[in-house]
Amino acid sequence: MTGPPPEVADVRSAVRRALAELEAGDLVAVACSGGADSYALAGATAFVAPRMGLRAGGITVDHGLQPGSAERASEVRETLRGLGLDPARAVSVTVGDGGGPEAAARSARYAALEETARSMGASAILLGHTRDDQAETVLLRLARGSGARSLAGMPVSSGRYLRPLLGIDRSTVHSACALMGLSAWSDPHNVDPAYARSRVRNDALPCLERVLGPGIAEALARTAGLLRDDADALDSWAERAEREVARGRGELGADALAELPRAVRTRVLRRAAIGAGCPAGALTAGHVAELERLVTEWRGQAHVDLPGGLRGRRVAGRITITR
Amino acid sequence: MTGPPPEVADVRSAVRRALAELEAGDLVAVACSGGADSYALAGATAFVAPRMGLRAGGITVDHGLQPGSAERASEVRETLRGLGLDPARAVSVTVGDGGGPEAAARSARYAALEETARSMGASAILLGHTRDDQAETVLLRLARGSGARSLAGMPVSSGRYLRPLLGIDRSTVHSACALMGLSAWSDPHNVDPAYARSRVRNDALPCLERVLGPGIAEALARTAGLLRDDADALDSWAERAEREVARGRGELGADALAELPRAVRTRVLRRAAIGAGCPAGALTAGHVAELERLVTEWRGQAHVDLPGGLRGRRVAGRITITR
Repeated sequence: MTGPPPEVADVRSAVRRALAELEAGDLVAVACSGGADSYALAGATAFVAPRMGLRAGGITVDHGLQPGSAERASEVRETLRGLGLDPARAVSVTVGDGGGPEAAARSARYAALEETARSMGASAILLGHTRDDQAETVLLRLARGSGARSLAGMPVSSGRYLRPLLGIDRSTVHSACALMGLSAWSDPHNVDPAYARSRVRNDALPCLERVLGPGIAEALARTAGLLRDDADALDSWAERAEREVARGRGELGADALAELPRAVRTRVLRRAAIGAGCPAGALTAGHVAELERLVTEWRGQAHVDLPGGLRGRRVAGRITITR
Repeated sequence: MTGPPPEVADVRSAVRRALAELEAGDLVAVACSGGADSYALAGATAFVAPRMGLRAGGITVDHGLQPGSAERASEVRETLRGLGLDPARAVSVTVGDGGGPEAAARSARYAALEETARSMGASAILLGHTRDDQAETVLLRLARGSGARSLAGMPVSSGRYLRPLLGIDRSTVHSACALMGLSAWSDPHNVDPAYARSRVRNDALPCLERVLGPGIAEALARTAGLLRDDADALDSWAERAEREVARGRGELGADALAELPRAVRTRVLRRAAIGAGCPAGALTAGHVAELERLVTEWRGQAHVDLPGGLRGRRVAGRITITR
């Protein structure tokens, strides 16, 4: 008896590991665009889930942004049904225009996935991101000059979302898809240079491969994993430190803050600002650096203006962040 | 009275800040290749140091790798003397062949700088690395897939070395050099694609600028600074944790290790392995991950082989690393 081809075996093992924590009888929903990554995920889940005592369904989202997208969504739903995923649903969304076209499509898609998974009673939503998607995410975030949490990229597991293929390279996943006999759709957005992610995929990463040698996607993904561990550890330290430097009514002791390592001090100040009502998305490293100067370079400076109409001040050796 | 051009003022201010911690009468030595970065550094130091009560000298190293390098080193020494740097010395080195041509030249150069600075009685050696050099270093290290300490790039200050220009972009420094009337040498290695750093400079970074937008060098340098703070904080935690999980005679308590966040646990295991005699350069993340499995995935596995002929074992709930 011969087993499946190695690429198919790899994808199935990855799905098996990702589903190990679920309970018998649970329903998992595969989010499927009809691209090769999510088709391979759907095929592997259809095979693996029943053998683990789990039920598997599928969801495809019609963003309504390209001609023929509704017909394609129906075809994807039928393919998912043909794989044995049940229920298999196609859901239409209206994409708004907040935060650029990629962000708007993403936020509409995730809202629809959440809602549909809930109505199906699914306890997990499986996403088809590969190691190459992770590398692209890290490079995109590197351009922002932000810290470890941002460079940590996408998590394997977050809330009800699972990314079983995050450790497998795209070419293996694409081969698995073809070997499963699934004919995938190629999203023209993936090669449209209007999209930053497509430029990273088709231009930046090949350039880095050429300059730095092969294996750059793997290296970026490995870096992301290490920095995720770092960010988790430092967040736990900052949470503890915030309690230790608290001086009542939202005040923080400046001397106690000064004794913390900078990486912890800046995280405590960031947490305190968000806790006081600053919108997290608008609070930059620059704001936090100004707050920090009230601690480490105190020369009687005035208040620090923060997003959301808040102000940071130092009064009698204590830092306060208030409206 | 008009001040100096802004580029010259920027470089001088950066040097002034870097030298602020030194004591009156101290001698600082500028390491100068004759390139625009280190000439600008030399010119600014010659101006700034005497006004701060410091003495300034210069060192140029002849690597003997290119025809005419000895003559060029003499010219650089004369230029440094002309700027008023005293003493100004040209030192010849023999470059070995360990670890590739760039690494061998670097190690010969740093040995000569150390030795010459010591013989001069210099308390600091100033290096001309700019923000762009830092970005190149981060990209080169990214290709290794290593963690925060590696991505933290070059420090502003390390032992007797100072890098006053690490926050300034290369084009500002080059303009400053020209405005000081210094005619710099262009090292052909800087455009030779045989060198990884030159490929990063002339190919990878321009490509990332094109794909991700301008400001990528600045973003990479900012990331390096944040990750340096993270690495410092986590190293301090690991140092403390290593003492807390110690169980006598180089043994570590497995249960206590299991309770640490992974970023701290792996650092403690790495410290313990190096403390037991593993050569740091040969100890990979893979070795540390295998040690970690003795803690987090214990199923009675055999010992872990480590570089330097050492072995990690788990016996009676304790991790030992011995020869």
